Amino acid sequence: MKPLYIMEKLFVIKIGGNVIDNEHSLHQFLSSFASAGGKKILIHGGGKIATKIGDQLGIESKYIDGRRITDEATIDLVTMVYGGLVNKKIVAQLQSLNCNAIGLTGADANIIPAVKRPVKLVDYGFAGDVKSEGINTGILNILLQQNITPVIAPLTHDGKGQILNTNADTIASSLAVALSALYDVRLIYCFEKRGILTDIHDDNSVIELITKDRYQQLLEEKKLFDGIIPKIDNAFSAIDNGVKEVLIGHANDLLQNLTETTKGTLIK
Amino acid sequence: MKPLYIMEKLFVIKIGGNVIDNEHSLHQFLSSFASAGGKKILIHGGGKIATKIGDQLGIESKYIDGRRITDEATIDLVTMVYGGLVNKKIVAQLQSLNCNAIGLTGADANIIPAVKRPVKLVDYGFAGDVKSEGINTGILNILLQQNITPVIAPLTHDGKGQILNTNADTIASSLAVALSALYDVRLIYCFEKRGILTDIHDDNSVIELITKDRYQQLLEEKKLFDGIIPKIDNAFSAIDNGVKEVLIGHANDLLQNLTETTKGTLIK
Repeated sequence: MKPLYIMEKLFVIKIGGNVIDNEHSLHQFLSSFASAGGKKILIHGGGKIATKIGDQLGIESKYIDGRRITDEATIDLVTMVYGGLVNKKIVAQLQSLNCNAIGLTGADANIIPAVKRPVKLVDYGFAGDVKSEGINTGILNILLQQNITPVIAPLTHDGKGQILNTNADTIASSLAVALSALYDVRLIYCFEKRGILTDIHDDNSVIELITKDRYQQLLEEKKLFDGIIPKIDNAFSAIDNGVKEVLIGHANDLLQNLTETTKGTLIK
Repeated sequence: MKPLYIMEKLFVIKIGGNVIDNEHSLHQFLSSFASAGGKKILIHGGGKIATKIGDQLGIESKYIDGRRITDEATIDLVTMVYGGLVNKKIVAQLQSLNCNAIGLTGADANIIPAVKRPVKLVDYGFAGDVKSEGINTGILNILLQQNITPVIAPLTHDGKGQILNTNADTIASSLAVALSALYDVRLIYCFEKRGILTDIHDDNSVIELITKDRYQQLLEEKKLFDGIIPKIDNAFSAIDNGVKEVLIGHANDLLQNLTETTKGTLIK
């Protein structure tokens, strides 16, 4: 049962590679992010910079079905690039914008424990599956109460000394669900489109609101392109587990939603 | 004036490259560190790994008088390596040893503000001089009170979005001094010798205790080799600014000091 008192709002915001890879768009995003009031957590993906530095170091990027295979050299690479370069650059920029950011991985203060993904048909190497029940909301809450903004790299750990490469979307939804016990959470996914489109070639065909009924209808009408369906399923899964609403859209538009009007696709 | 009540002990421990570069000695050190009771902060240097990865990336390591010149490529390199690879590996290992570590740079939660070193005879590039008066002991204290152990990489920031490469010894002494307002601080420098030696070729010539009087005497007798004098001066400066005592010695010996007997050189 939900507590009867009104919980404070918390925005859990995930940005992907398309924002990170471009210095200008990253700075623009961080400016909006910093100026938006209220409590918030930022989760960032890796971007192409890991692949670029990996190439220079002779570390081959291997993918199966769009997922990176994380061998020993690759986990060191992403630990450096995601946990160090990308994370700390974001933190330093946010600090300059008067946002008191703290950069963390899931290993730090044991915030996000995980297990190495079991080898079935594919060995993903040092890839982590989040142990949702183990998420350490206590320390995140202490930081948030100090008006500190956690900035989280897509890395977790297995509790046995091993860092694990972990999907940033999953980290965002896991944190959003866990923190919905303490906050009124809006989960925001920034991606390259302005929202979920009925016509992938028409950027203005944004669906403004998706409820479960509307989703069923869209599926029956085959109006959704395949790639977006798992994202919507994840969104409803987060909502079923306590998250208030999920917003999917373009970084430039979305930050205005931290205050009022909605641009993008709202799922609730 | 010092408060009259008894302050809790805090160990501020700095490890250098000689510990970090060797996986075995690092693990041995971290095991002792994790098992030592009480509140503690670990500050780590960079080690040779940054130079090695820099070589692979075609980033030339430049030094003037033993100090690294930090150009734009180098600050990215050390941000990756110190703030990501080294820091997060230490954190994950400590977590596996039941030490609830959190890895931070000086930019995180604005813990250690700094200024880019002014260009005089030498342009050190993105090197940071700590703004001691700005050290954010509040958040460090909150973490320590949660029994969380901060693990700090030798990086600071200028508050304007720029990460700065910063000497780990200086970070250690600055943190020790700032935290001595709240704790009874023992500052511990781990280095490659078992303490300060009167004969650099005799590892057993460790001076067990250096007071100001004894220091004066050692200087007059010319019993100290040149390289160690700035370290002792720094130690006395820390003591003059509130740190209870400073211990210099080998990592293997020193951790036992977190409980009782002293091995190494005690400066007080």
